[in-house]
Amino acid sequence: MKCNAITICGLGLIGGSLLKALQGFEGATFYGIDTNDATWQAARNAGLIEDERDAAAAFAKADVSIICLPPEATLDCINQNTFKESALVTDVCGVKQAIYEGLTNQNIDFIGGHPMAGREVSGFSASNATLFRNASYLITPTETNSPEHVDLLKRMAAYIGCRETVITTPAEHDAMIAYTSQLMHVVAAVLCASPRLLKAKDFSAGSLRDCTRVAKLDSRLWSQLFLANREELSACITEFENGLDVIKACLSRDDAAGLADFLEQSVQRKAEFLA
Amino acid sequence: MKCNAITICGLGLIGGSLLKALQGFEGATFYGIDTNDATWQAARNAGLIEDERDAAAAFAKADVSIICLPPEATLDCINQNTFKESALVTDVCGVKQAIYEGLTNQNIDFIGGHPMAGREVSGFSASNATLFRNASYLITPTETNSPEHVDLLKRMAAYIGCRETVITTPAEHDAMIAYTSQLMHVVAAVLCASPRLLKAKDFSAGSLRDCTRVAKLDSRLWSQLFLANREELSACITEFENGLDVIKACLSRDDAAGLADFLEQSVQRKAEFLA
Repeated sequence: MKCNAITICGLGLIGGSLLKALQGFEGATFYGIDTNDATWQAARNAGLIEDERDAAAAFAKADVSIICLPPEATLDCINQNTFKESALVTDVCGVKQAIYEGLTNQNIDFIGGHPMAGREVSGFSASNATLFRNASYLITPTETNSPEHVDLLKRMAAYIGCRETVITTPAEHDAMIAYTSQLMHVVAAVLCASPRLLKAKDFSAGSLRDCTRVAKLDSRLWSQLFLANREELSACITEFENGLDVIKACLSRDDAAGLADFLEQSVQRKAEFLA
Repeated sequence: MKCNAITICGLGLIGGSLLKALQGFEGATFYGIDTNDATWQAARNAGLIEDERDAAAAFAKADVSIICLPPEATLDCINQNTFKESALVTDVCGVKQAIYEGLTNQNIDFIGGHPMAGREVSGFSASNATLFRNASYLITPTETNSPEHVDLLKRMAAYIGCRETVITTPAEHDAMIAYTSQLMHVVAAVLCASPRLLKAKDFSAGSLRDCTRVAKLDSRLWSQLFLANREELSACITEFENGLDVIKACLSRDDAAGLADFLEQSVQRKAEFLA
């Protein structure tokens, strides 16, 4: 299908980066929506979007609307607006089941999306066209979606530099993301909650820096994401704590062989992961 | 004091990197010791060390001997060899109390050292002269040490590119390292112990990569380091698990405000750490 116009709602790090990375895509015209006037103006001044400030008008014209907001705001936006008939509407939320469950707008062809990219900085000023290079773009189409829209999303993912488009289900997405992303953010935040951190500067090297990199996060956004996936995330944390307990048990019984075996298994698994 | 000769025992990642980084230091001559002939020959072929294969001879000639071995081997090496009279002997172990407690050689001036640098690769072939750039060099001198030797260690640390030499005690060193380094390696290893890891590739981005970077470790070395600091490390793991439990409790009672508060506190603490 021909994509004549794309509207991006929410011009923060992800929305702004998509807007920049998609410039030139199949000759489409771009519209931008942001509740922050300065942000909208910055995108307009950069020549990235048309001169259309009205959200309803922008959605009405777009063959593809990409909602780049936190989960609750994403649902509000999709459910409370009218989109072009049969338009593709997609999102970028880090959870997918909660989005599908909360969707009430029946007049759109919605496909959940999640480009696996981010930074420890936020906002339009931090966005850039190269953010998605070599990233994985997860999408969760169902049998009711137009195959042409699925193809279009894949072309967009390729255009912005993603290494692959991965088709998955909302349930599988949330189960995997609980580990690959949410648990890592929990780990980083809990490591930084230690009073030891502030005395650590003179005593630290790369491992502390890397394990805590993503602790600089958007607290409200991430608490929404965690709660929207609470069962899977809790299961991941419990599994992780069980592993920590194995290490503590080895320490308490002075079990060098047990420790070395545990560590070596992780070394091998990491090597397999990297291969 | 004039440092005419330096012997480095153990030409792996740290020893080899020290050897390379120290070249040219105050006109000193370098001797190298390694139980692996090919490693010794590689250092010799690179023109980094003199043609002296005998460990006893190399130690007898050195004003400074740097032992770059795992903790148990470090103690064996220092206790079972004879060094030049009143020579400075130092080590690079990631634990310090266990080294001081195990030391029986009375004829040396021993100062514990720990350059805070490493890589996920090991061996002489991975060593390089820039490894210590901008690192912190921890040393644990006591009142019985020669002030000239303390000064010499500081000059060496500056010469190899360290940003600072930090004087601490073995007890403080071990307490801090349990958090800044050992806990991070435990976290990385336990994260990689999850069966989820091998399905994670399509679903992962930078956070999984960074939180697990140091999982590629030397299992025997790190189990020695963990056990030599078991009480402090166990305390760190328990404190960390308590933090994870706070997150789980917020999840189970659907407490968005509690979660956001916890995360925001870590955001602020991380910012303070980076400042």
